[in-house]
Amino acid sequence: MIHETKSKTVESSAKTSLGLGRKIPSLQGTGDPFSFVSQELQLVEDTLTRAIRSREQALTDIAAHLIHSGGKRVRPAVTILAFLAFGGKKPSDIVDIATAMELIHTATLLHDDIIDGAETRRGKESAYKKFGLKSTLVTGDFLFIKAFEFAGKFDETVVQWTADACALLTEGEMLQGHFNRNRAVTLNDYIEIVRRKTASLFHTGAKVGAYLAGAHSSLVEETERFGLNMGIAFQMVDDILDVTGHIELLGKPTGMDLRDGNPSLPIILALQAGENAVCEAFECSQPTEKQITAALNALRTGNAIQEAKATSKRYAEDALKSIKKFPPSLYRNGLKTLVQLIIDRDF
Amino acid sequence: MIHETKSKTVESSAKTSLGLGRKIPSLQGTGDPFSFVSQELQLVEDTLTRAIRSREQALTDIAAHLIHSGGKRVRPAVTILAFLAFGGKKPSDIVDIATAMELIHTATLLHDDIIDGAETRRGKESAYKKFGLKSTLVTGDFLFIKAFEFAGKFDETVVQWTADACALLTEGEMLQGHFNRNRAVTLNDYIEIVRRKTASLFHTGAKVGAYLAGAHSSLVEETERFGLNMGIAFQMVDDILDVTGHIELLGKPTGMDLRDGNPSLPIILALQAGENAVCEAFECSQPTEKQITAALNALRTGNAIQEAKATSKRYAEDALKSIKKFPPSLYRNGLKTLVQLIIDRDF
Repeated sequence: MIHETKSKTVESSAKTSLGLGRKIPSLQGTGDPFSFVSQELQLVEDTLTRAIRSREQALTDIAAHLIHSGGKRVRPAVTILAFLAFGGKKPSDIVDIATAMELIHTATLLHDDIIDGAETRRGKESAYKKFGLKSTLVTGDFLFIKAFEFAGKFDETVVQWTADACALLTEGEMLQGHFNRNRAVTLNDYIEIVRRKTASLFHTGAKVGAYLAGAHSSLVEETERFGLNMGIAFQMVDDILDVTGHIELLGKPTGMDLRDGNPSLPIILALQAGENAVCEAFECSQPTEKQITAALNALRTGNAIQEAKATSKRYAEDALKSIKKFPPSLYRNGLKTLVQLIIDRDF
Repeated sequence: MIHETKSKTVESSAKTSLGLGRKIPSLQGTGDPFSFVSQELQLVEDTLTRAIRSREQALTDIAAHLIHSGGKRVRPAVTILAFLAFGGKKPSDIVDIATAMELIHTATLLHDDIIDGAETRRGKESAYKKFGLKSTLVTGDFLFIKAFEFAGKFDETVVQWTADACALLTEGEMLQGHFNRNRAVTLNDYIEIVRRKTASLFHTGAKVGAYLAGAHSSLVEETERFGLNMGIAFQMVDDILDVTGHIELLGKPTGMDLRDGNPSLPIILALQAGENAVCEAFECSQPTEKQITAALNALRTGNAIQEAKATSKRYAEDALKSIKKFPPSLYRNGLKTLVQLIIDRDF
């Protein structure tokens, strides 16, 4: 199971619309949701660049290596869209916390790459591989700290939610570690890992956006539910792409979850179906390339991918059900399209 | 250069006075400064225990392994004493931020042990050695996050100062890494590393204490200066003890700075004096025990220790000069005695 794959289409379309003034999407429109918030996302980019400035150039360089490597900015986009969907007006009210979400995400990626010994990330050498364990570890800390500097400007509720999201991330990492190459893992364990590890920044970002826009508490809760289901669907699609994706689009080889022994959704479904090749590669502490290839073939030809796709769609549909309860707006449409994009993506 | 050595005397005397109600020290008194704040330190202990509770027992266990291993709680003590010295009254106004200082300190120790590959800490197996890299890394993150949960309850000034202190810590770690086994290191580089890496939590804790007590801004600045000089003296004494200390009191072998290639004050002074055995052990990527012993002997018999002691005393005197400008109080005396204890300790 991985956190993310490489952005191509979404990121480039977000970029092309940056700085061109806000597009006015029609109420029926299903255009690129990133373009709806291009101005705010540009402010997030500027804030990220400012945030990683340090007396120590190496910290800035290592942070920039990952931050400026084509991240999709999905978490800031969700945060900002939720804010605007509930009538939030001033970008200055949301940009800092949207930036904090991306900083936290980046910090965890740096530390995850150490934990997984990852060699590549977003199509290039990982910071861990390029700069080594020590500097990458410290840069991760630095980004966590910067995130809290931004989050700390908000009221106690936002600070608490952000801290809770981060604590969940670490608790998800521990739970995932527990089930590393561990055949005892169940679908419920998987959902719990994903709730904590991937979905936490989605549901926290969405909830904070609604809260800061002044939404009623019942709607803030609904937004949290939306973010949770969207985040779970997002991770499930990531897991599927780790089997079915293409190296050029993913920015990394397929089969990483099998290599790392991380219990992804297709792997768990195949384990439950008693798929021998998958069991063998997953449980083996150092699977050979032959074992990985055999397991990937089994995953691709069996029912695991189909089942995983159906499961991810159910979570996406739950996210869409929540969105229906939001007041009609351009940005509600943006959120809807974002869910669709997440499900339909191939990167 | 290390962060801390094992507590024995101070910690045990703090413990014996815990829960017995506040001792009323005389205005001339030079009693144990930890006993002056035993009630508040007990609240810090309780808060630490609460802070490390997690859904994941392993996070709690790893955090507890280090947090309940006899730390001196110098940073919370400085924070609380500064608060009381400027007329702060309610423990509830200071305990959370004093706890945050200890949580941040503990988080950095966990990550430092990974960076240094340390096998022991406070006289027992390090968390890194006992629980492995992955879990120790994530637990460090967890403690940083918990620290910010506590710090985030305070106003923007306190949040900013705390974030600045943490950023400084990471910048100190990077600078220290740059001068690892690097003979080009100067005394100025050393002071800059120590300002960032050790002194930051001392001067921030002290400053926050004075600020939250409502001290005038000029006195808040003076308190910061006090904390800075005290923190620098503290690290210098640690560096000296790494040469002259006893394993039973230190809780770890001497010569760790030579083994790790960290530029400590005695090492830098010996390098400048062209002490061959020290140059050899410091620059060597994997010094032998014979080289370490030769270098330690050279450090012990040359002028480095004497010079280092004189230097640490100058910083301690500067700290005492600041204290003289504080309004007379029992707690001002406590701070004075704490500086003395730091200089005179052999652990």
